[in-house]
Amino acid sequence: MPEIRLNKVTGEWVIIATERAKRPEEFVERRERPVAPAHSPTCPFCPGNEDRTPPQTSSLTDRDGRWLVRTVPNKFSALVPEGATVRHDNGMRTHLSGVGLHEVIVETPSHDLTTALLPPEQIARVLDVYRQRSAAFYRDPRIEHVIVFKNHGVAAGTSLEHPHSQIVGMPVVPGQLRSRIEEALRYYGDLGQCVYCRALREELADGVRVVAHNPSFVAFVPYAALSPFHMWIFPRNHSADFGSVTDSEIADLAALLKEVLLRLYRGLEDPDFNYVIRSLSPSEASVRYFHWYLSLVPRVTRSAGFELGTGMFINTALPEASAAFLRGVNIAAPLP
Amino acid sequence: MPEIRLNKVTGEWVIIATERAKRPEEFVERRERPVAPAHSPTCPFCPGNEDRTPPQTSSLTDRDGRWLVRTVPNKFSALVPEGATVRHDNGMRTHLSGVGLHEVIVETPSHDLTTALLPPEQIARVLDVYRQRSAAFYRDPRIEHVIVFKNHGVAAGTSLEHPHSQIVGMPVVPGQLRSRIEEALRYYGDLGQCVYCRALREELADGVRVVAHNPSFVAFVPYAALSPFHMWIFPRNHSADFGSVTDSEIADLAALLKEVLLRLYRGLEDPDFNYVIRSLSPSEASVRYFHWYLSLVPRVTRSAGFELGTGMFINTALPEASAAFLRGVNIAAPLP
Repeated sequence: MPEIRLNKVTGEWVIIATERAKRPEEFVERRERPVAPAHSPTCPFCPGNEDRTPPQTSSLTDRDGRWLVRTVPNKFSALVPEGATVRHDNGMRTHLSGVGLHEVIVETPSHDLTTALLPPEQIARVLDVYRQRSAAFYRDPRIEHVIVFKNHGVAAGTSLEHPHSQIVGMPVVPGQLRSRIEEALRYYGDLGQCVYCRALREELADGVRVVAHNPSFVAFVPYAALSPFHMWIFPRNHSADFGSVTDSEIADLAALLKEVLLRLYRGLEDPDFNYVIRSLSPSEASVRYFHWYLSLVPRVTRSAGFELGTGMFINTALPEASAAFLRGVNIAAPLP
Repeated sequence: MPEIRLNKVTGEWVIIATERAKRPEEFVERRERPVAPAHSPTCPFCPGNEDRTPPQTSSLTDRDGRWLVRTVPNKFSALVPEGATVRHDNGMRTHLSGVGLHEVIVETPSHDLTTALLPPEQIARVLDVYRQRSAAFYRDPRIEHVIVFKNHGVAAGTSLEHPHSQIVGMPVVPGQLRSRIEEALRYYGDLGQCVYCRALREELADGVRVVAHNPSFVAFVPYAALSPFHMWIFPRNHSADFGSVTDSEIADLAALLKEVLLRLYRGLEDPDFNYVIRSLSPSEASVRYFHWYLSLVPRVTRSAGFELGTGMFINTALPEASAAFLRGVNIAAPLP
């Protein structure tokens, strides 16, 4: 019998299609993966090609002054950085001027690496830059919400090989985030506790969906995962704001993110994926009902009319089986 | 300057990326389209192969008893039709037994046609079957919500060529629908009118985003369209329930749906698309705040981490330009 599971964090029902569930191995998409060069002369993110991007907004450098991580304005930004936020409230035609900030974070000078293969110290640098740029974006009084995300691979929406992430600061709070806040507020109002803290406690007690954990973070396939291998990484420490992470938490998150991505990379042969950091703003950092987290979605299935029409997902993998598969991947063996 | 437009019906903000907007023609994906045969001996939906599907649940036939439209249980249903809805309310692990109904509607005996090329009378038969099967599904007391949808093409989630749609009856109301009801209720509470009726009135007054209309229906690209050529078809008559459509409204909807799909077929060279009918249940038919409609999404772009992390979309086409392009497509010229 299939199960329809409720995600109490999001208020969304998910159909877990046990009858037509696939084995985890069946989600491996075997395909030609061209071998990328360590340096590409035409890549705008490779060292030596810095003049092909707009002037950088920040960088972390080594002792010799060479950049390790750099941030640049997105050349194809959907929003423009200059100008005031002007609201036009004209009945059904309500709109704002499209001001906002949009940067690319170049994660490493090496063209051919992927996050799973970066040293944890380098991933920690990238996360540190996320934190710094988020803080800088929020200092702009026009910015209401900042989102950090990564697209890896064509199915995840990028054709650029060089490892990079993006950060967008917007003059509005997305409707989806408002819904999440409403769900969390209602739960807090009813039960006097953070629904995220509660979910984390129960996932740890159950254990079967946990993929990896360390002193500061837990990675798990949620009970009502939207899709195969969909994972959440929750900080153990309650805070609504990613910007409040400490340096030692960043080191722990880097280690856990690397482990989880390496399990995907090896277990599913480098699948396309997206990850996003869901967080409130620094002004909401201490609210008791919301908890920031990282959501990771391997792009191994495709959504269609059912998802479009209902917002519900059909997950063709059992979350417990996805988690067990990922735990079982041998990440200690040397790379080929 | 880009615009961030609010969809007052859904409560969602959309970035209209005017700076990097493409011309409508640029969304044409030129590709090899193998010529499909009029009849395929291996297709489970072709006449003569009726024994390859589960036994049919209904059909419309011609005078000689040959079927024109038939419905069959989905062989790969995510839900099972037998059994009671059992709720397990176990803290964060709340779930229901996965009971529900899932059928395929075979839209025509002809393997090689697509909705855009069917005669309007045949499309009216298909819509009539949607109405009949929805009503039948809702007579099952376990069913809380019914969704009718169509996936056309691989990017829209189907690899089956033979024209077909699907209908799913579920024992839960999707969270997304609940959000829509909440938005509509709030608007009605504040302003004493149906937000859908208001949107329709303003779209007709503006005119620039209307693609086609007839006495019963209006097809338009919404002011805050999620993606290029995203269209809504609204009934002029206020009703929350698709099941309440009359025969003459079905004929009008068939004519308008055909026209709109033909404009896409010719203007964008048969793009992949999804459509869904958003409706409440017959028990809610007469509520004043909700309005059923058909939503049509051509799959000409791909969503990525930004959409995943915010629920917001970046539309790289100006809705007014999408509508003007579609209005300008010559649909009178004979087919090649």
